[in-house]
Amino acid sequence: MTSTTLRVNMPQWQGGDEPAYRFGAELLRWLAPPHDGPEETVAVPRPDGSAPPLDQGIKWRDALLAQARAARAAIERHDPDRIVTLGGDCLVDLAPIGWLSRKYGDRLGVLWIDAHPDVMSAAEFSHAHAHVLGMLLGRGDADFTAEVPVKLAAPRVMIAGMQGWNEAEAPILKELGLRHIPATDLAETSQPVLDWIAREGITHLAVHFDLDVLDPSHFSPLLFNRPDAATDAFAGIEQGRMRLEQVVRLLKDVSAAADMVGLAITEHLPWDMLRLRNALAELPIMKA
Amino acid sequence: MTSTTLRVNMPQWQGGDEPAYRFGAELLRWLAPPHDGPEETVAVPRPDGSAPPLDQGIKWRDALLAQARAARAAIERHDPDRIVTLGGDCLVDLAPIGWLSRKYGDRLGVLWIDAHPDVMSAAEFSHAHAHVLGMLLGRGDADFTAEVPVKLAAPRVMIAGMQGWNEAEAPILKELGLRHIPATDLAETSQPVLDWIAREGITHLAVHFDLDVLDPSHFSPLLFNRPDAATDAFAGIEQGRMRLEQVVRLLKDVSAAADMVGLAITEHLPWDMLRLRNALAELPIMKA
Repeated sequence: MTSTTLRVNMPQWQGGDEPAYRFGAELLRWLAPPHDGPEETVAVPRPDGSAPPLDQGIKWRDALLAQARAARAAIERHDPDRIVTLGGDCLVDLAPIGWLSRKYGDRLGVLWIDAHPDVMSAAEFSHAHAHVLGMLLGRGDADFTAEVPVKLAAPRVMIAGMQGWNEAEAPILKELGLRHIPATDLAETSQPVLDWIAREGITHLAVHFDLDVLDPSHFSPLLFNRPDAATDAFAGIEQGRMRLEQVVRLLKDVSAAADMVGLAITEHLPWDMLRLRNALAELPIMKA
Repeated sequence: MTSTTLRVNMPQWQGGDEPAYRFGAELLRWLAPPHDGPEETVAVPRPDGSAPPLDQGIKWRDALLAQARAARAAIERHDPDRIVTLGGDCLVDLAPIGWLSRKYGDRLGVLWIDAHPDVMSAAEFSHAHAHVLGMLLGRGDADFTAEVPVKLAAPRVMIAGMQGWNEAEAPILKELGLRHIPATDLAETSQPVLDWIAREGITHLAVHFDLDVLDPSHFSPLLFNRPDAATDAFAGIEQGRMRLEQVVRLLKDVSAAADMVGLAITEHLPWDMLRLRNALAELPIMKA
């Protein structure tokens, strides 16, 4: 029997309440290598400019829940060995990692490469893309955590590239018992992550790669480079410190140490490409 | 009879001796609005890492000449009313403007939106993307100028957005009698260009939009933002000063004043997208 890798395209934008995630997902799909195996695209409504509905403290909660359930159903239809997910905001990884956790149990490790821990809940923040790792551990909105039948155990989760956290996140990280390796410790070597894989006996690995772990002065398509942002728009929010080349090295190193069964790429916001696309669409000769 | 707009895709990279132009052209095509009319893609060999052959002072001269002739043949097959060209380096506009000049004669004006005048020849520079406006006016390599049966007349050419030029270009600009409007004069208004259109009795307009007319600190996919560039790599080379929104406003204003029959978008170098594409292609799970 050959193994199956499912590609899941998920242009979800509501988890960050930012319509540009949709375009970012479409472009990410174009950039990704061609895929021979099965592919699913989760239907996500186009942003129509309406104000975000707030339900139980979460913006766009109904849509996000419906999309998480649709992603789970799509994955279950294929029963794949591996899942590559192209987001979309960080919450796209709920169903893929939930499913891999059920399939691989305590052989599965989760490497969360992110400038942020994504452990808040509606009590702290209304954007559910910042809740997803918490949900996978069983913390947060009950309807979302119910989508994760086998919760992750903290020792088999490692946050990589996070350099700091906010006051709301500090007690949650402690309560959950989550560990992390800062960007500075991964700049020259992947060894701290490889040590964790060996120590925990991890044979199968799911990787969440939030592009915002990258330094925004060296990689442009990130939230923090939003062209119309006020100068203080991101005050107090941690920004990434890693280089793309460092993350690629880390991903290759962990691929050699465990079977990478999951990879999600999230938070792709290619602002200049969006501006150029919109500019071209406005020109009369393009409609002639 | 309905009018025909031909879309010409031309992923030419040899005119700037930079393989990334090929990728930039492919992505530009993805970004452009869908096109209902005829479309041609000029075949351009993939870069294979070999050193550029230098012939008669021009790098990759044979390939560039063959591609210019292929573009001309493709255009002649369709006899279109309008041409939208998606480059590639600046030299992609030789055949389209050459053909529009033959079709519309002295009714045609050429608006050259560029940080540089593109009037050098092999005597001054071996990269032919910096020769193309000169060739259209009859200056430079005889085999390339022969591809332009009806040369442009200087009064019906306007360079827009150019703020300065180098010592080699200064006497050529004078000899050709070319006029220009600096970026600063177009920041708030399109009036200087509209005045030129009215004064010259221009009814049909071809626009060359070199993206490098844009300020590289406000628009990332430009040559000057090459990630591995040495700090002095672009010393002494004029960089653009315009904003994308200003160029869009200019293009809409001139579309209302004349029939825009040609538009070429050139020099698209989306470095971060190329880095991300290459990073994704390296990951083992993407090949699983």
